[in-house]
Amino acid sequence: MTRPAFETTVTQIGIIVRDVEAKAKAWAAILGLPPPEIIITDPVDIAQTEYQGQPTPARAKLAFFHLGQVSIELIEPLGHPSTWQDQLTQHGESLHHIAMRVRGMAENLAYFDAQGLPLVQRGEFTGGRYAYIDGGAKLGCILELLEQD
Amino acid sequence: MTRPAFETTVTQIGIIVRDVEAKAKAWAAILGLPPPEIIITDPVDIAQTEYQGQPTPARAKLAFFHLGQVSIELIEPLGHPSTWQDQLTQHGESLHHIAMRVRGMAENLAYFDAQGLPLVQRGEFTGGRYAYIDGGAKLGCILELLEQD
Repeated sequence: MTRPAFETTVTQIGIIVRDVEAKAKAWAAILGLPPPEIIITDPVDIAQTEYQGQPTPARAKLAFFHLGQVSIELIEPLGHPSTWQDQLTQHGESLHHIAMRVRGMAENLAYFDAQGLPLVQRGEFTGGRYAYIDGGAKLGCILELLEQD
Repeated sequence: MTRPAFETTVTQIGIIVRDVEAKAKAWAAILGLPPPEIIITDPVDIAQTEYQGQPTPARAKLAFFHLGQVSIELIEPLGHPSTWQDQLTQHGESLHHIAMRVRGMAENLAYFDAQGLPLVQRGEFTGGRYAYIDGGAKLGCILELLEQD
């Protein structure tokens, strides 16, 4: 199977937190940056969030620090089934994923699935979409595929 | 306290794994790169490894993928007390740290400690030194400070 278009570099690192406002303030102080805006993911009818193949009303509060090539994304899960909530429940506050940019989400998902790297969660956001790939057994972590329109 | 010199961007992401050869091969296949050399950290008399303020014989097998600004570091702990071994025992294979480059390790450690971000492990390597900062409670993850000579 031919490898579809994705950038072989890291564009984002996601961290699961319990209290995004407090963590964003602490990161801002360390980085010498202003505290970022806190946003909330769209509801399921807009985000079309799917977890383990099923629609889920799960949402999260997010804060981003854009640091050149790489952004740090703080993610506070707001309940309901999701990989975010699973990780907070099972492992507490912790690093969650590293993200790479892709072109053509469907082809990428088919390619990663054929490599033994199945989809775990997906959703839409204004200007693009994401998919978390369960890389635990093969790669040691969750990969996020990020596509901008 | 004045903030010492450190780059406010991410230079490396560390992943704890059980089997660095297998994980390195899987990452290489996904990234379309040749499998990297596997190296082993120096013994305690050279690396001067300290964990929780005590010398430790802990070592690890490492593999690196250099992807532009950011490197992915695979870390297979080889026993003895360390943050690497702790994480493998407590959380299994998982993302471990994000690293930033610093100038002046001692001043940086004093600064981070004063911010409520204490040292958890440190060591030397050929050409530099590292320190892991326990950022769990304040930042949601371990930070690594990396200094090149």
